[in-house]
Amino acid sequence: MKAVGVIVEYNPFHNGHAFHLQAARQASEADVVIAVMSGDFLQRGEPALVSKWSRAKMALLGGVDIIFELPYRFATQKAKTFANGAVSILDAAGCEFLCFGSESGDLTSFLRTIDYLEEQKASYNEYIKSMMNTGVSYPKALSLSFQQLADSENHLDLTKPNNILGFQYIKAIKQLESSITPLTVQRKNADYHDEHFASETIASATSIRKALFSSENGKNSIDKFIPETTHQLLQKYYNDYGIFHQWENYWSLLQFRLLQTSPEELRENYEMEEGLEYRFIASAIESNSFQEFMQKIKTKRYTWTRLQRTCVHILTNAKKTEMASVSEKATYLRLLGMTKNGKKYLNTRKNHFSLPLVSRLSSYKQKEISLDIKASRIYSLAVPNHHQSELLNQEYKQPPIYIE
Amino acid sequence: MKAVGVIVEYNPFHNGHAFHLQAARQASEADVVIAVMSGDFLQRGEPALVSKWSRAKMALLGGVDIIFELPYRFATQKAKTFANGAVSILDAAGCEFLCFGSESGDLTSFLRTIDYLEEQKASYNEYIKSMMNTGVSYPKALSLSFQQLADSENHLDLTKPNNILGFQYIKAIKQLESSITPLTVQRKNADYHDEHFASETIASATSIRKALFSSENGKNSIDKFIPETTHQLLQKYYNDYGIFHQWENYWSLLQFRLLQTSPEELRENYEMEEGLEYRFIASAIESNSFQEFMQKIKTKRYTWTRLQRTCVHILTNAKKTEMASVSEKATYLRLLGMTKNGKKYLNTRKNHFSLPLVSRLSSYKQKEISLDIKASRIYSLAVPNHHQSELLNQEYKQPPIYIE
Repeated sequence: MKAVGVIVEYNPFHNGHAFHLQAARQASEADVVIAVMSGDFLQRGEPALVSKWSRAKMALLGGVDIIFELPYRFATQKAKTFANGAVSILDAAGCEFLCFGSESGDLTSFLRTIDYLEEQKASYNEYIKSMMNTGVSYPKALSLSFQQLADSENHLDLTKPNNILGFQYIKAIKQLESSITPLTVQRKNADYHDEHFASETIASATSIRKALFSSENGKNSIDKFIPETTHQLLQKYYNDYGIFHQWENYWSLLQFRLLQTSPEELRENYEMEEGLEYRFIASAIESNSFQEFMQKIKTKRYTWTRLQRTCVHILTNAKKTEMASVSEKATYLRLLGMTKNGKKYLNTRKNHFSLPLVSRLSSYKQKEISLDIKASRIYSLAVPNHHQSELLNQEYKQPPIYIE
Repeated sequence: MKAVGVIVEYNPFHNGHAFHLQAARQASEADVVIAVMSGDFLQRGEPALVSKWSRAKMALLGGVDIIFELPYRFATQKAKTFANGAVSILDAAGCEFLCFGSESGDLTSFLRTIDYLEEQKASYNEYIKSMMNTGVSYPKALSLSFQQLADSENHLDLTKPNNILGFQYIKAIKQLESSITPLTVQRKNADYHDEHFASETIASATSIRKALFSSENGKNSIDKFIPETTHQLLQKYYNDYGIFHQWENYWSLLQFRLLQTSPEELRENYEMEEGLEYRFIASAIESNSFQEFMQKIKTKRYTWTRLQRTCVHILTNAKKTEMASVSEKATYLRLLGMTKNGKKYLNTRKNHFSLPLVSRLSSYKQKEISLDIKASRIYSLAVPNHHQSELLNQEYKQPPIYIE
């Protein structure tokens, strides 16, 4: 059986994602689609709308056969680390292909650009350094340097978020010396950051979340952009737990932690650097909401996303030592769910997997997984008190989801 | 001007306290009454009903002339440390007398018992040790050992909470080589732990709090046990902030902290000892309320009070290093409020105080006070979000209360 891998967040799973899965299957002629998905906290430094279990189910009902969790240690990171973790999981699970959506849709432009930047490495790094000295953020410096260097006509547009991710996926494949073949399909009709609906049936997850949070009316207005199964699962989650998760649900906890910690202690948290700790603590005292807090801490030097990720690390108390000391590659395959077809693949291939397959936490005692467990627990604190035990215990009791 | 000191919590100030102040003034023939009062967290390991500012005002309207805050470092401690901190403040503020309420009411029985235990020190300590080995709590071991040793007819009843405190006050006076003369008045008609009303006008703070939390009706039923000024201040606090503080208001924060910390990190908190950290973390996952949590962590070895204090230290993130490294004596006099009479005393005497007088935080930069500030901030997180900034900033902006 041949497998194609996809790297996803599904926040939530929508028609664009379903389209991507079909295209991946077609382009690769694979028998199974394996997804690696961020857990409860996402790359943009935000809690996911609904838990990873609910999102895994959406995925399995929407065309994915096997779904693994991208560990916290990779999921809440800059593109490069995110890509390394995700690709190493697909590689360990025996994928022949990785198919990603991109604004470009043209694989050769990716390869050409990677080679070009490799050649121009010295001047590229020089540019980046001088850009950073002007006080801009690292991603901004990368993008500006690339524009300085490259003739944009022939190269990948590295200002587009999905192009950047794809670029990092291919670099990760090279770096890990994986035999995975990359494929890309052009994203349809929706920019990653779009806040408004631009097409009849495809919309960005950003615009869908915006509508979900806006009003009761908003909940209905997204129906044409999501499969019926996603609609039902979102509805069920809301009925069961009373919320869709967002940063404001965690504000009182973040504020509390910032008020009870010391600058020295805060500096132990991952990505807490260069005097940011004083700014965070002082702003926590003055703010009445997460939005207000973010407005107070933002600077030219750091992107909003980077600052949000730092907040996630404070919330989960992820330390520099925990995040940095581990290898660049994943060390386990945490199975969230599978279809009948996926199960067949696992049964025939799992003995050849290069990493341990973790179906239940109770049977896996390695320390690396503790950050994932902690993140899940903290995530569940947003739901009303009487539902917490249920969610808190789910992490240990929930077997992988199985869709017949 | 002659001053008599009292050591108080006023949670809340009631008729029994007013009676005690009159008796203290009478017995000492002093011109001013100086109170040293716990801040926002109390000796029993609980948040105070209302903030220290509100309680300080009750005190000044009820007969106190000058009120100092007992720093967090002493207020949330076992009787001995509590007493050392409080007595050192009264001593530094020039008190000639210390007048405490006790079940006994007979000073000679205190002095006799202290001398007796001094003589019998070796066998007393031996008893305590062997009692501890049976697994009982330290206070229980003290009390049992004393019963074994002493002919109770002639000695102080050291099973009574106010006798224990008074005993420690007098020992602190001796240890600090203070010239303060101790006085005691018998507590009237209410046991410290009474949960029910036993007299017409005097009731324990415990029973008053119980009534306050029970129902709207309960709020009215306490009126005959508290001065009108206390009634008004309680009413105002409730109108302003919507709550009377209790542990349940902090449960979600405590739980969050226990879920995000590691056993190693938790062990750095004061009073977190001997494997308790694992018990705390495991119980936090399984509990839906503070009461439920306390039921899960309680053991024969530790008193409820001791465990609650440990919870306070987790909440405020008070470290062993911070709490232990400081001297046995207070290092500053934090003025919460004064009357006209109290101001006169301060003006004539403050240059002779043996510790710095802190009227405003902004003018005092010593690190020792940071735990008090942190405790105040954490305390204020229980009020609804839109009132928090006000309370959070109060600590810096509030000048001492002045009652003309």
